[in-house]
Amino acid sequence: MTRYDAATLRETLTTLFAENGASDDVARTTARILVEGDLLGHHTHGVKLANGYLKDLTAGHACGDPARLEIQQNSPVAALFDGHYLLGPYLVQRALDHCREAAETFGVGIVSLKRSHHIACLAAYLQPLVEANLIPLVLSSDPAVASVAPFGGLDRVYTPNPLAIGIPGREQPMLIDVSMSTITNGTVAKTRATGGRLEHPAILSGEGELSDDPEAYFAEPGGSILPLGELAFGHKGFALGLMVEALTSALSGFGRKDAPTGWGASVMVMVIDPARFGGVDAFLDETDHLARRCLDSRPREAGKPVRLPGQSGLARRRDYLERGIPLPQDVVEALREAVANSSLAGKAPFA
Amino acid sequence: MTRYDAATLRETLTTLFAENGASDDVARTTARILVEGDLLGHHTHGVKLANGYLKDLTAGHACGDPARLEIQQNSPVAALFDGHYLLGPYLVQRALDHCREAAETFGVGIVSLKRSHHIACLAAYLQPLVEANLIPLVLSSDPAVASVAPFGGLDRVYTPNPLAIGIPGREQPMLIDVSMSTITNGTVAKTRATGGRLEHPAILSGEGELSDDPEAYFAEPGGSILPLGELAFGHKGFALGLMVEALTSALSGFGRKDAPTGWGASVMVMVIDPARFGGVDAFLDETDHLARRCLDSRPREAGKPVRLPGQSGLARRRDYLERGIPLPQDVVEALREAVANSSLAGKAPFA
Repeated sequence: MTRYDAATLRETLTTLFAENGASDDVARTTARILVEGDLLGHHTHGVKLANGYLKDLTAGHACGDPARLEIQQNSPVAALFDGHYLLGPYLVQRALDHCREAAETFGVGIVSLKRSHHIACLAAYLQPLVEANLIPLVLSSDPAVASVAPFGGLDRVYTPNPLAIGIPGREQPMLIDVSMSTITNGTVAKTRATGGRLEHPAILSGEGELSDDPEAYFAEPGGSILPLGELAFGHKGFALGLMVEALTSALSGFGRKDAPTGWGASVMVMVIDPARFGGVDAFLDETDHLARRCLDSRPREAGKPVRLPGQSGLARRRDYLERGIPLPQDVVEALREAVANSSLAGKAPFA
Repeated sequence: MTRYDAATLRETLTTLFAENGASDDVARTTARILVEGDLLGHHTHGVKLANGYLKDLTAGHACGDPARLEIQQNSPVAALFDGHYLLGPYLVQRALDHCREAAETFGVGIVSLKRSHHIACLAAYLQPLVEANLIPLVLSSDPAVASVAPFGGLDRVYTPNPLAIGIPGREQPMLIDVSMSTITNGTVAKTRATGGRLEHPAILSGEGELSDDPEAYFAEPGGSILPLGELAFGHKGFALGLMVEALTSALSGFGRKDAPTGWGASVMVMVIDPARFGGVDAFLDETDHLARRCLDSRPREAGKPVRLPGQSGLARRRDYLERGIPLPQDVVEALREAVANSSLAGKAPFA
């Protein structure tokens, strides 16, 4: 598999976004976050997305003009951002910068972000804050999409609703990025495209049967994605999904009641500074202690030691930064398509 | 089953706590929160706990003197409470009051609480804030106990780590209180006491086998409670459990590294005011819309409609307030034992 240099990918995407109406800052930030997704191994939520973002920029659904962002600063620590469908990575990064400043002064900063365009891989935002010994949180829902059914029900009502949090640690910082459903819309679509089966039966068919066949989702009547906890403990995943809905769409005042269409996101961003609570050293001591206890656990399967959230991603990132990112073929093809309509057409590496 | 009047229960417990060294405020608040647990149907986390709290007060591990609470106010919105093992319900209520005041001015308030005694039923704290159109959050871990193994491992490292959040709604407010593990320590102990089997195989034996037998937890080598998501998706429940550890123990600076013993809790309390974001009306409109969509879903099993988190608890609460609380026999016996050593000995209803 050909490996691609991260810096080259960032430059390529920056050029593409800039040529499609994004300001330099919006283009660079979006390119950086997408490449971060691939560096951490999340190729479905990395540079592959660029093609769709470019199409939405061209169609006018996504926006690349940072002047469109409206910030309503409701207190020194709380702000409401109306993103007007600016590219999501730019908006989330702005919200994180905003929260970071508040957190370093007040201990916490919180931004509610409505009408964002798609925000890519949530884990991709965490590392710089974690390295500064801050705790970033990003929660997201997409009020234009319904794919998960409430526990006990059959009708799709809400989205997988990911929650990401970064936990500073000296030895092994943790990057957490998990949806409140068993699997994501992306996994369903990707598995269907290959004609395969899901790793676990995570679909509830329209008739209420468990299934590992992605086609059960698209059949008539339509299926749904099971909440985390599945049939036995799905009331917990359902409750956590509702929590994310409340902290994103409801808090921002814009959500499913407004029946939006197209790619979008409601987002809550928060940063907490341990220095304003029990202190950074005590925080790191506790994280290191807990991480060590987890890593030292006897493994359930011989040769498969416990891994902490983000551990493989960060190892991969170090390797990919040094030796390049081995992009899957579908990602390379998506990039080729995007490059074909730009000033980079015919040039390496995506000729 | 005999029903007990909520007000009588509150008065009984207030007397018991006061006679064992708690101030009037500490006694009343703790009694109120324990009775709230039973009103919502959580009898394992209600008045049954009083007996253990009284024993810890007598032994000097729990404290009833509010002057022991140390508050370090690190910013207008962020505080660190050192609870010095004051009764947990009093501490959490104080933290919520503190956060509420901050939230109503700044949009958010956050308290990190270390060295709390046991904090009872998390759902019991939510309703008054939800009725004021605020969003309360309570997260908790117990650094003296290890019962859940990291995903992929066999050794007990951390606790079920519940997260509670209240979501204001006109038609159906939501009270969420879920642990990040499949089941709680309480369920394991209770099922073992009856000699029964768990409803689902939620124990991983010390040899790595799934089991619905609570004895598998207590065998040698010891078993553990599976994270939410079980063997298929347990990496998510594990990650969420680590999130709660970080936001409770690590943030407060006091945790597993300090090897505490006895009943205790590390807690994070937060209140968010929607009025400082997208506005209360828009928040309620969105919650009502989402609740309606969930409740209108076709049920998976005929006659078993979708229920929202807290819906049954609140219905039960209305009934119990009117007709009394039908306490299970083990709870009545625990209360009788507590009353026997007090000025209420020999008096109704726990003679």
